[in-house]
Amino acid sequence: MAWRFALMIDPLAADDPRDDVDSGFTEIDPEAPALPVGELSAQRGDGVFESIGVIDGHPQEVEAHLRRLAHSAELCDLPAHLGQWRAAVARAARTCAPGEAVIKLVLSRGVDGGPAPTAWVMAGTTADFAAARADGIRVATLDRGYAIDTPARAPWLLLDAKTLSYAVNMAAIREAQRRGADDAVFVSSDGYLLEAPTASVVLRRGDSFVTPTPQAGILHGTTQISLFSHLSAAGFATSYEMVPAAELLTADAAWLVSSVRLAAPVVAVDGHDIPVDAELTASMNDYLLSPRD
Amino acid sequence: MAWRFALMIDPLAADDPRDDVDSGFTEIDPEAPALPVGELSAQRGDGVFESIGVIDGHPQEVEAHLRRLAHSAELCDLPAHLGQWRAAVARAARTCAPGEAVIKLVLSRGVDGGPAPTAWVMAGTTADFAAARADGIRVATLDRGYAIDTPARAPWLLLDAKTLSYAVNMAAIREAQRRGADDAVFVSSDGYLLEAPTASVVLRRGDSFVTPTPQAGILHGTTQISLFSHLSAAGFATSYEMVPAAELLTADAAWLVSSVRLAAPVVAVDGHDIPVDAELTASMNDYLLSPRD
Repeated sequence: MAWRFALMIDPLAADDPRDDVDSGFTEIDPEAPALPVGELSAQRGDGVFESIGVIDGHPQEVEAHLRRLAHSAELCDLPAHLGQWRAAVARAARTCAPGEAVIKLVLSRGVDGGPAPTAWVMAGTTADFAAARADGIRVATLDRGYAIDTPARAPWLLLDAKTLSYAVNMAAIREAQRRGADDAVFVSSDGYLLEAPTASVVLRRGDSFVTPTPQAGILHGTTQISLFSHLSAAGFATSYEMVPAAELLTADAAWLVSSVRLAAPVVAVDGHDIPVDAELTASMNDYLLSPRD
Repeated sequence: MAWRFALMIDPLAADDPRDDVDSGFTEIDPEAPALPVGELSAQRGDGVFESIGVIDGHPQEVEAHLRRLAHSAELCDLPAHLGQWRAAVARAARTCAPGEAVIKLVLSRGVDGGPAPTAWVMAGTTADFAAARADGIRVATLDRGYAIDTPARAPWLLLDAKTLSYAVNMAAIREAQRRGADDAVFVSSDGYLLEAPTASVVLRRGDSFVTPTPQAGILHGTTQISLFSHLSAAGFATSYEMVPAAELLTADAAWLVSSVRLAAPVVAVDGHDIPVDAELTASMNDYLLSPRD
């Protein structure tokens, strides 16, 4: 990821009237030092984030991302001033070159002992995901360690907050690569499909599409939601379910969907090939690459 | 925590001859911007750390901390140049005022897309833990979500690495405080004691001291190791066990032990008072406050 633009966001009081105007942030050099070493994002991964896809300067599904940011922030007892974030995203989007880009929103607990959270927005170019979208990806399934009923009884585990504490997500991708795969798919300790480290899992069964229920302690994917509304409008059935992991091998097709890579068809699971629907995948990505709100 | 001193550490090649000399780092202002927003410690909690207690300028148990840093780094596929870290700790220790202080070591995966890890050392004053040591702390037990046999089968969960991804640890402390306690104690999903978010748990049963086995996917506490060697030299039995959570309520005494707060006696568990041995606690902290290597 090459970051081309960044804004630091001024801390606001909860009732600050600037909450909904295009002010309260400062452009900074994305490659220059900006955070002191006492930053709790850097010391403890203590904060939340979102990554928003941008197509020809249009940020995709901004409201869905802001809603999830607010949800993550609430779970972490952090304030989220959505008007200010919305204005910062719009300003960052205006700096994006034609084609695909990404905007990342980071809300940290702030500097150790400091008075307020730290917040910033950054924009940059993305890797080229054409091959992943067209040729697909190989996945390895990995135990996430939790039973599927854990999040309901242990909200302090932050399982449905998109926190900055992604060390395990990154370690899972490295483990998948060691196994000869491109990406990982997490499975609960009692054998249900969950999510990929940075994407949602979608399966096709006949004319139905299914994704693991967000109540399983996973993030509710903004791209998955958008894709399901598109599939639903096209006449397909869609549902949220508790999906046994074995169904990934017997599905008619499967995808990992996320805001920047978009729909990547799964071609193999733990070394076993699964069917790929190239035409449907191409139409999914045509949709996901169109401006969406 | 007030950070008074910081060093950025130069990235080294694995075979760099400077690995064991007092060079290769640069003093920086701990309150000034030092990390770009693309830092993966700040974006993903992707890195590892250690916190070392300092008494009158003497850093405690440095080699035990460096061994654990190397172990954490290995689990995260990061390089650890212990000679360079050792020299940086010694230099940071020389800046510490008389009394108690803390040195923190942070090893991050570096800047997104960058060529090398980022590493820094910071030193600062600590909070005053006299009350916690003398009057004790109230704890709330919280489900950690994992069964005790999880770490053996899922090393990618990094359960025995001290990573920068501490959002859950911080959320658990906030949940404990909401319940009227001072700190949390994690329990496995199958009912065994694990650790506190930033400390080890030690129980007394008669003339025996026991702590949960590190094979349960917890950090092996440097202060717990040091305390056990002291207790063992004083004639007590010490052991690592799988400890059912209920034993926290029936122990003759219990402590949370860590590098900076040292031994804090547990006075209540989920609102139920437990016995406190004030004299033994004071002697433990006398030992922990003496220079140790």
